[in-house]
Amino acid sequence: MINVLEAKNIILSNSQDYGIESVDFIDSLGRVLKEDIFADRDFPPFDRVCMDGISLSYSVFVKGKREFVIEGVQAAGSPQKTLMNSDNCLEVMTGAMVPINSDIVIPYELIEIENGIAKISIDEVKELQNIHLRGKDKSEGDLLIPKNKKITAAEIGVLATVGKIKVLVAKRPKVLIVSTGDELVDVSEKPLEHQIRRSNVYSIQALLLNLSVSSDIKHLADDKDSLLKEIARSLKEYDVLLFSGAVSKGKFDYIPEVLDELGVEKLFHKVKQRPGKPFWFGRRASLITYNDDITNNSKKNTVVFAFPGNPVSAYVNCLKYFYPWYEKSVFGKEKEREVARLSDDFNFKANITYFLQVQLKNIDGELIAVPLSGNGSGDLANLTEASALLELPANRTEFKKGAVFPVIRYR
Amino acid sequence: MINVLEAKNIILSNSQDYGIESVDFIDSLGRVLKEDIFADRDFPPFDRVCMDGISLSYSVFVKGKREFVIEGVQAAGSPQKTLMNSDNCLEVMTGAMVPINSDIVIPYELIEIENGIAKISIDEVKELQNIHLRGKDKSEGDLLIPKNKKITAAEIGVLATVGKIKVLVAKRPKVLIVSTGDELVDVSEKPLEHQIRRSNVYSIQALLLNLSVSSDIKHLADDKDSLLKEIARSLKEYDVLLFSGAVSKGKFDYIPEVLDELGVEKLFHKVKQRPGKPFWFGRRASLITYNDDITNNSKKNTVVFAFPGNPVSAYVNCLKYFYPWYEKSVFGKEKEREVARLSDDFNFKANITYFLQVQLKNIDGELIAVPLSGNGSGDLANLTEASALLELPANRTEFKKGAVFPVIRYR
Repeated sequence: MINVLEAKNIILSNSQDYGIESVDFIDSLGRVLKEDIFADRDFPPFDRVCMDGISLSYSVFVKGKREFVIEGVQAAGSPQKTLMNSDNCLEVMTGAMVPINSDIVIPYELIEIENGIAKISIDEVKELQNIHLRGKDKSEGDLLIPKNKKITAAEIGVLATVGKIKVLVAKRPKVLIVSTGDELVDVSEKPLEHQIRRSNVYSIQALLLNLSVSSDIKHLADDKDSLLKEIARSLKEYDVLLFSGAVSKGKFDYIPEVLDELGVEKLFHKVKQRPGKPFWFGRRASLITYNDDITNNSKKNTVVFAFPGNPVSAYVNCLKYFYPWYEKSVFGKEKEREVARLSDDFNFKANITYFLQVQLKNIDGELIAVPLSGNGSGDLANLTEASALLELPANRTEFKKGAVFPVIRYR
Repeated sequence: MINVLEAKNIILSNSQDYGIESVDFIDSLGRVLKEDIFADRDFPPFDRVCMDGISLSYSVFVKGKREFVIEGVQAAGSPQKTLMNSDNCLEVMTGAMVPINSDIVIPYELIEIENGIAKISIDEVKELQNIHLRGKDKSEGDLLIPKNKKITAAEIGVLATVGKIKVLVAKRPKVLIVSTGDELVDVSEKPLEHQIRRSNVYSIQALLLNLSVSSDIKHLADDKDSLLKEIARSLKEYDVLLFSGAVSKGKFDYIPEVLDELGVEKLFHKVKQRPGKPFWFGRRASLITYNDDITNNSKKNTVVFAFPGNPVSAYVNCLKYFYPWYEKSVFGKEKEREVARLSDDFNFKANITYFLQVQLKNIDGELIAVPLSGNGSGDLANLTEASALLELPANRTEFKKGAVFPVIRYR
């Protein structure tokens, strides 16, 4: 059995670049930018008025003149005007071009206007005051957003500003989530005594939506022939298969042998961790094909994450393994991991990594991980009370209050 | 001019319950749960096998018997079987019901099977070992998720488990985002020298999508008559109007007077903060109507957030004011705010609250706010380099390294 670090390294070394695609910028929220975004002009693109008021000549003002005839108005969105007589002024609006022959802006708050004449009530001004000079923020050609950045609201605003109506983003793998287990019935059904409802596929699908990854869902019966047929087809159609269930030693746990027969190479099975130990991971290399009609994605491996059927196990493994695999695939590198401080002493006897369900609290700027009371392997309802998983390393049984461990936030 | 706390309190006191609606549980991710979710049965719903192996009678085992004829197989998803002869055993699969007359499960790892007989290689067992007893996690009727919780992947799994195919969630307000300013052109256009592209409406729309709130977008010209007409209509159609621009002292800053003429009560204009000072907030009480055909949402106020046109100002105000207003409206209370520790000394002279753009780092479990170098009022591109806003209070000019301040994360 390998440990969590080995498991993660194997998984990360099987991350894959799925290429790029062009999308409307308004649809790019949450996606990963795959082109550098440059300033298409200076920002601001002209000497820009920063306050509503009047603009006039600094040199005239410093000579002592305090009353200025208003020649007109320079509105935002209007072509640049010229101050015709330097003893006069123009009313100017925030966002407007600073008129030619004027070089200071005095806000309305500091003037009085009567009969078309602006009287200024201050004696001190600074050259270029209240003017946002052309190119002060950025120059044309400056790099505004480097590629491989996640597109959030701020990036959307920048894309709009530079007119990138179409933007290159990372393509996402095509993902299928498969549940197995004959005890599972549909959510809409009333289960018989020996049955339970399917839930893992939905919580995993939701976890993937947090990454802006959509996915399909399928349920397969514990029947080897139909598993062979269905999984063979899915291996062709999808880049990633996520299974939940049927990876243990049970008589009907056909997933590992079916995957083997379909040419999916097992890279590991079982990880020294709790929960989530019977996790199976493999890939089908692109060159091994089992059907003549495989043509499309022939250069891509299909990777297979086969999680245990226990809801908490599947949830933990998705966060711990699928998330970094996906991030490495689309960002080109793993995301930085967070750490948090344990609020209380905690003991865990088995010599394997333990994912402790915790509530993450921000106390005076410190991230404090508070274990859920009565925490066991846990049912799914516990996950609704926790907000993160604290990763307690193997080789230790006592975890002291105040010690710092890696943490995986999920809300 | 009021301060940020006064502004926020006025805004929070104008939060509003928009009622509830029923949605498919798979579409409820990110929404706010508006009903308590109870266990529809015990969890597990039956004494459940936890390991693949054999089940047999504890009392027979402790009498010394170590070889058991296998009577058959109890699969997961099959009705409960009975161990007919207590000297025998049944093969049992993870997730199956524990067969009647058996009360321990011994995993395959600890037995050998030959000619239909299981030989057990251990001498110590515990009563009920590897059995997850009915109701151990939850009893029928137990509260699993209290209402007013945000629905994340974990909650989706619980909703599926208890068969909540339809779930009650908070209705969201209908939001319109309006840009004004004749200097603004469409993203797809090439601006003339005195023009810039619209960007605020898109970044604000994206900020709202982070809250799972969709919104419409409109651009209005700086023309008082058309503003009056368009805004009158929008006040009827929407619960929330978010403006950006035209709230200062400019000649064409018609928004405050237009809102006033349309019966929108100004609750404040201008807040002691930078950026985002010229923020205008108001509401139109439901009883004041200006057209006979207002019938639908007649019990609701329309609230109006009129942000400044500066992209960073609008962004900051949306995070600082719209976010808590929305959270109070749908959750019934404000979300807990985070704090972070300043990485370096920082000075800010004006006696107003300053929203400092910072990168938030987790260093040994501490949230450290690192100011962006060369931080000014800032252009939108700076927001792509930062990840949060540190809220530095008024009444101080020096902010010391190590001091803790409220922080608003936005990525």
